[in-house]
Amino acid sequence: MEKSKNIYDTTSLSDMPPEEFRKYGYELIDWVTEYLKDAEKYPPLSQVNPGDVKKRVPAQPPSKPEQFSDVLNDVDKIIMPGMTHWNHPNFMAYFNSTASAPGILAELLSSAFNINGMLWKSSPASTELEQVTLDWFRQMLSLPEYFWGIIYDTASVSSMHAIAAAREKINIQVREKGLAGRSDIPRLRLYCSEHAHSSIDKGALTIGLGLEGIRKISVDNNFKMIPEKLSEAINEDRKNGWLPFCVVATVGTTSTTSIDPVPEISKICQKEKVWLHVDAAHAGVTAMLPEMKNVFDGVEFADSLVVNPHKWMFIPIDLSVLYTKHKDILKKAFSLVAEYLKTGQDSEVENYMDYGIQLGRRFRSLKLWFVIRYFGIEGIQNILREHLRLGKLFAGWIDEHPEFERMAPTPFSTTCFRANPGNLSEKELDFLNENLMNKVNETGKLFITHTKLNNKFVIRLVVSGIRTKEKHVKEAWKLIQKFYSKIK
Amino acid sequence: MEKSKNIYDTTSLSDMPPEEFRKYGYELIDWVTEYLKDAEKYPPLSQVNPGDVKKRVPAQPPSKPEQFSDVLNDVDKIIMPGMTHWNHPNFMAYFNSTASAPGILAELLSSAFNINGMLWKSSPASTELEQVTLDWFRQMLSLPEYFWGIIYDTASVSSMHAIAAAREKINIQVREKGLAGRSDIPRLRLYCSEHAHSSIDKGALTIGLGLEGIRKISVDNNFKMIPEKLSEAINEDRKNGWLPFCVVATVGTTSTTSIDPVPEISKICQKEKVWLHVDAAHAGVTAMLPEMKNVFDGVEFADSLVVNPHKWMFIPIDLSVLYTKHKDILKKAFSLVAEYLKTGQDSEVENYMDYGIQLGRRFRSLKLWFVIRYFGIEGIQNILREHLRLGKLFAGWIDEHPEFERMAPTPFSTTCFRANPGNLSEKELDFLNENLMNKVNETGKLFITHTKLNNKFVIRLVVSGIRTKEKHVKEAWKLIQKFYSKIK
Repeated sequence: MEKSKNIYDTTSLSDMPPEEFRKYGYELIDWVTEYLKDAEKYPPLSQVNPGDVKKRVPAQPPSKPEQFSDVLNDVDKIIMPGMTHWNHPNFMAYFNSTASAPGILAELLSSAFNINGMLWKSSPASTELEQVTLDWFRQMLSLPEYFWGIIYDTASVSSMHAIAAAREKINIQVREKGLAGRSDIPRLRLYCSEHAHSSIDKGALTIGLGLEGIRKISVDNNFKMIPEKLSEAINEDRKNGWLPFCVVATVGTTSTTSIDPVPEISKICQKEKVWLHVDAAHAGVTAMLPEMKNVFDGVEFADSLVVNPHKWMFIPIDLSVLYTKHKDILKKAFSLVAEYLKTGQDSEVENYMDYGIQLGRRFRSLKLWFVIRYFGIEGIQNILREHLRLGKLFAGWIDEHPEFERMAPTPFSTTCFRANPGNLSEKELDFLNENLMNKVNETGKLFITHTKLNNKFVIRLVVSGIRTKEKHVKEAWKLIQKFYSKIK
Repeated sequence: MEKSKNIYDTTSLSDMPPEEFRKYGYELIDWVTEYLKDAEKYPPLSQVNPGDVKKRVPAQPPSKPEQFSDVLNDVDKIIMPGMTHWNHPNFMAYFNSTASAPGILAELLSSAFNINGMLWKSSPASTELEQVTLDWFRQMLSLPEYFWGIIYDTASVSSMHAIAAAREKINIQVREKGLAGRSDIPRLRLYCSEHAHSSIDKGALTIGLGLEGIRKISVDNNFKMIPEKLSEAINEDRKNGWLPFCVVATVGTTSTTSIDPVPEISKICQKEKVWLHVDAAHAGVTAMLPEMKNVFDGVEFADSLVVNPHKWMFIPIDLSVLYTKHKDILKKAFSLVAEYLKTGQDSEVENYMDYGIQLGRRFRSLKLWFVIRYFGIEGIQNILREHLRLGKLFAGWIDEHPEFERMAPTPFSTTCFRANPGNLSEKELDFLNENLMNKVNETGKLFITHTKLNNKFVIRLVVSGIRTKEKHVKEAWKLIQKFYSKIK
């Protein structure tokens, strides 16, 4: 049988031929161009049922090469129906994150380089561009110079490293002796508000604190941690033999984007000699707006801080940034240099592998560099400012409507609300709002998600996608009202 | 001043215009095509000095947008000289990993989708394609059906999750109570050979074992863990009050690619009721060759196994796969579902966020799908087989040369060797070989790295790049001999 030109020749022992890469590369660029241009024509929430995608993919891998054009066709046939389109301007669920075009192009380049930036030597450009762009980003956020930065994949991993560094700092020889079976150390406790992200709990579980090692501090009516309660908890725990070692404050909690009172919390941490980690994964980027600088009040006193450019700065996931004043402690917690990784330059350069669990490190700073340069600080600021305006616009509409109510302040662009016709029990309200949310999501025109506040079912609407304009927020509100009228 | 068409309009509040993305997308595809075609013309090891890249990037971020063409030009001017080119066919350092063209194209698509596959609902196609492709990969490696898989970013993180699951399994209520300050639990110990990867130590440090919680088992003359020593260590530790809970065996250690005797080790683990984790990050993929199946002997008895398609299967980093028999235990160790992440389908679907610390999950299975389909199993097998042949070819040349010696067996394609003229002390030999390696690397034509074996300086040469052909291995050998003649 004659071998088709378009089928990989398994006797070549090579990669795809260059001209074929060029051809399919162009095709994919065209595909992505149209996709991003028309992101609105796909449903933001996939409408498939569990198993629908799986059953269209053969259960066995192909032993012979397939036409690459068939693979690309299957993206349309098999993958696209199963996609929840985070790019859709009416994806207003979770904390929507969207990748900008310069960020996508940077990722293309980064995957072509395919370096591992574990050591300076293994990719000097990756290490040094990370140093420079993280300093740029620090300046954009008006953070003090003593904050040293590192890129991890996700905020969960950034926060875990922060908590591990806090554990290292308490001087109980955790690096040498660990935690288990030691009668010479107390139980350790970390504090965060009831509204802290679940990643804090996961980080704490991972490093061996257990659920009991996490104490949740109650929040005020605006869902902010109550500093007095934190003080009380620390005092009480000390009396009972616990060792308080870390507090996590959140700037922009996941349910409501509330901002914990970092200035007061930082004073308590200083007095109690406890590590303060600030989780500003979603909302931290807004500190680059002069009018929003105050969201970082007190953050200068933090021992560590996480902000995710991949969430609301139009950088493709994953790119989470951890800043800390204590790079030496982070290094002590994680540095282990095997002989095969020793280089002659270890004293004069930064080897980022020394500051974390992951040895493999993609060239992620490239996308930070591309995006900041393409948009300029001003370009990014303008989009963020518009999102904040749109968020507050929507919150205003909720406030004006007699049968809707806002369930939390809207300090950023996330609105927590529910429908409330005024004559229903709490249980009935929960049912009504869950039903409303599901009906709206089933249209394939809008995707919103929920949380619970004081045990009440609350709908969240988030404006943070790069393609979201005023008309999309208007459409969302129209759709919500339409279905409310139908089901109330 | 007139606004140039090529500068981003900061009043647009939008992404890069579609036609501009298409234009620069084509340009970048052209750039990558030429780069991969000519990867040989760049030095495999960057020849810059520390600080060279940094000083060419402005210290402040741009407040105004820049021409995107300037950004791309700076890739050539600033980034390229600072690159260590993992794509170069004579990058024979560390465990070289190269991305194939279909993998790169998959990454382009994945970053355009920019989904977060934390929940089934947040991207059904991502979740279900991960399930199917990991089952494909399992079949390719002839692993039993009871192995359930998940994609993490790196082997370090995969192994940390395995060790955390092992900790969870010992039933000391670690999830509830943690490890610290408990007089009711013993000290915990993990075992691995002296040649296990440093990521095992990092994982152990992270979860709170401390360096003392890791016991290194000595190796035989072929750098394989000695099972009797493992038995003895476990017995001795039990007598002294330690709780042995995890053994890590390596299939393809980093220094020499030695293979620990997994069948014997697994028997000990079963008898001692200790979790067995197998680290086959680099070499595991070779189990897809019928003639290499035996490298996975005994692996069917492991509790968990890590293999990295991003290392030697031409998938762009990062894509590490963890297989385990105990997904329920992994889930118990890491599952925490916040209200805002609850969906109506949680009982009928797989939400991968439940099995790990990271909430954010890129659409990584796309690149596994693209690469397996484009090359077919046969295509991948043929390249692996060729690499193994070339590795052994090089090892043979070392063996034949009267003034070179092989320092370890070559079970895969990594050769450990040194020059030895026969009249030098060990210290002089170390100096000679370090000098030889540095001289060769400074040519910008070959990049090789070293390790220490029995305290001797040993050079490693690894054949695992997709562009590495017989002529490159020949050139490497010629270059090594040439410089040896010069400096001996």
